[in-house]
Amino acid sequence: MNAEIITIGDEILIGQIIDSNSAFIAKQLNKIGISVYQITSVQDDKTHILKALKEAEHNADVIIITGGLGPTKDDITKTTIAQYFNDTLVIDTAVLDNIKRIWRDYIKQPLSQVNIDQALIPSKATALMNEFGSAPGMWLEKNNKVFVSLPGVPFEMKALITQHVLPKLRAQFKLPFISHKTILTYGLGESMLAERIEDWEDHLPAFVKLAYLPNLGRVRLRLSAKGNNKEVIENEIEKQIQLLLPQIQDIFVGFEDETTIEASIGKVLTEKQSTLSTAESCTGGALAERITSVPGASVYFKGSIVSYATQTKIEVLKINEHLIKQHSVVSEEVAKAMALNVKALLKTDYAVATTGNAGPTKGDSDVDVGTVCIAIATPKEVMTWKFTFGKHRKRVINKAVNKAFELLYKEILKN
Amino acid sequence: MNAEIITIGDEILIGQIIDSNSAFIAKQLNKIGISVYQITSVQDDKTHILKALKEAEHNADVIIITGGLGPTKDDITKTTIAQYFNDTLVIDTAVLDNIKRIWRDYIKQPLSQVNIDQALIPSKATALMNEFGSAPGMWLEKNNKVFVSLPGVPFEMKALITQHVLPKLRAQFKLPFISHKTILTYGLGESMLAERIEDWEDHLPAFVKLAYLPNLGRVRLRLSAKGNNKEVIENEIEKQIQLLLPQIQDIFVGFEDETTIEASIGKVLTEKQSTLSTAESCTGGALAERITSVPGASVYFKGSIVSYATQTKIEVLKINEHLIKQHSVVSEEVAKAMALNVKALLKTDYAVATTGNAGPTKGDSDVDVGTVCIAIATPKEVMTWKFTFGKHRKRVINKAVNKAFELLYKEILKN
Repeated sequence: MNAEIITIGDEILIGQIIDSNSAFIAKQLNKIGISVYQITSVQDDKTHILKALKEAEHNADVIIITGGLGPTKDDITKTTIAQYFNDTLVIDTAVLDNIKRIWRDYIKQPLSQVNIDQALIPSKATALMNEFGSAPGMWLEKNNKVFVSLPGVPFEMKALITQHVLPKLRAQFKLPFISHKTILTYGLGESMLAERIEDWEDHLPAFVKLAYLPNLGRVRLRLSAKGNNKEVIENEIEKQIQLLLPQIQDIFVGFEDETTIEASIGKVLTEKQSTLSTAESCTGGALAERITSVPGASVYFKGSIVSYATQTKIEVLKINEHLIKQHSVVSEEVAKAMALNVKALLKTDYAVATTGNAGPTKGDSDVDVGTVCIAIATPKEVMTWKFTFGKHRKRVINKAVNKAFELLYKEILKN
Repeated sequence: MNAEIITIGDEILIGQIIDSNSAFIAKQLNKIGISVYQITSVQDDKTHILKALKEAEHNADVIIITGGLGPTKDDITKTTIAQYFNDTLVIDTAVLDNIKRIWRDYIKQPLSQVNIDQALIPSKATALMNEFGSAPGMWLEKNNKVFVSLPGVPFEMKALITQHVLPKLRAQFKLPFISHKTILTYGLGESMLAERIEDWEDHLPAFVKLAYLPNLGRVRLRLSAKGNNKEVIENEIEKQIQLLLPQIQDIFVGFEDETTIEASIGKVLTEKQSTLSTAESCTGGALAERITSVPGASVYFKGSIVSYATQTKIEVLKINEHLIKQHSVVSEEVAKAMALNVKALLKTDYAVATTGNAGPTKGDSDVDVGTVCIAIATPKEVMTWKFTFGKHRKRVINKAVNKAFELLYKEILKN
């Protein structure tokens, strides 16, 4: 079973928005054993959409289309799909009722003709009810191929995929099994890692694929396998991982699945009933932002002092001014004091502190752009590290955040 | 002039990474007058890549390929491109010298065969030197069409596009002019906005296109025009905007180009030599993170107190415990005290405070999930607002951040 994802919208082709919908859809399809053959982004143009539909019908069994289903005039997806199926648009009364409900309960304005027109769908289509918006999803079939058209608004699209599209695909097709497992490593470059595990890689069975995904000081290794027997697939992946692990012991961090490192940290802290605070300079609130992106973070996260200015470090975090003068504001000594002081101030078990210079200029410190010091305070001790993360501002900040979470996670697991 | 962007990599098709490279490339090409006809993401598979190249050659004048140029075995782009051009791979000595330099200065490990092999390029190709990595870009031509292959690592790809690809395209082709202008509105839904400006939209000239881009309480209107005469294009867009503005005065926020609202805020604060601090509860550091993502933010941003726990609000921000008990921790009164206290504590001219409940549970407060209070303190006064932003955690946080920046920006401009 193959799928093609077609995203419609000039805003993608002029680079105004990044197409994140396709990644979500691809991940969900893969989970139920449908491979994505291709993702195609096309213009808001009837001829182009028709061409893409025809090619997708040729390449794939399932075609998922997103975008171009809103109430405004730049949306031509619906009429184009009707034309592709030699069909006409008719009012779907269930969809119209849903629109009326939304307007009555949330919009509280009279229903206009453009809103009513959103209930028009091709007569051959089954409407997929959109509980978060007025544009319905549409399910059509042709020559044993399934076409699904979804609105482009991410949270509406996601709900439709989860609630309607995946269950219907599962019910209609006997699907193969696809398994992915991703191993997170850090500290060794892609090419050196490849050389080290070359022999293992050369002996992988043909149905197991390996990919290297390097990113900011980490390399993820992704093993993928596909087949009809779930047990065979899973056993083979497990066997290959057991062969690989002894060769990468020194750089192995863990397995990466749906979770993030901040969610893993949250899980362990919740289990331990421990609390966390952060004192941030160069990361500027990014640690706190990622920690609080995890639902339930209020159980363990007390807060952060984002002491971006040296003055804030002195006056709020109570860092000794002489310490800063003696060692520079970007130093392991200052990072250590920040971690200890925020831990005491917010009364937490763990604390993380960052101080560094992400550039573009040297700012309050005399260290080179890219220098970052990190401190982790635990119930028992405080440790510090110094890194150089290059000259690219955004990358320096992201590398510092990733490294701080890695160090924190390891320390929490130790304690 | 049309372009097609081909991104190669199974990691995109299984949804492990979001293809953000294409948006960058599309934006850059549009700026120099090259429209992107289509973006196609294909598998790490020789047959599939060859098919995509052939179709792209048929559809477009410029074909930009990213991905699959790293040192590891899962990379087959280079040999496939050589095959497409009936060519063989040869060592490019300038590329090899660049690789040697990187290994000597940064990697400090002996050069291996896989590293040396990165200097292999098709004999018909011109190498584009990659100053940040070992994989070069490649420029090839065939039947007046240009093919450019670039590594998939975003910052390497971006440098190659800016330093090599755009100047070479500009030198080689006489390019048309494309202009986009985006108007940011908030407070009116997409369909109501469409109805209001229907008459204006119906009278737009054929070469001017309008798109509605709704997102979290804001609707962006994008006007695009393309032609050979820069002046005609720009005058027409300007004329249409002047016709539109009087109709949307009550919901118009500004024009959105390359900049973000946090960068606009930074620009005005720098000009005014004013300073800013934030006190964040439900936004959890996201305000600070976005403020400090702007280079030069240290000039005006002193820091943030992320008081996620009620205890942190009381002990660090010195919010009166009785005030919290009397009004609830999510209240305009508490938001006001947070803004005033952080402004005093960090000695800034402006301060923003957020307190709310992003869900999924009610937490320390008894207000409904989605309730957010925002306060803005200026040198003259302090104002507060109360909003309900729905039940979706991530959306509540993002809406709160967007709204806080909008309110702050308007207040700074007033003062």
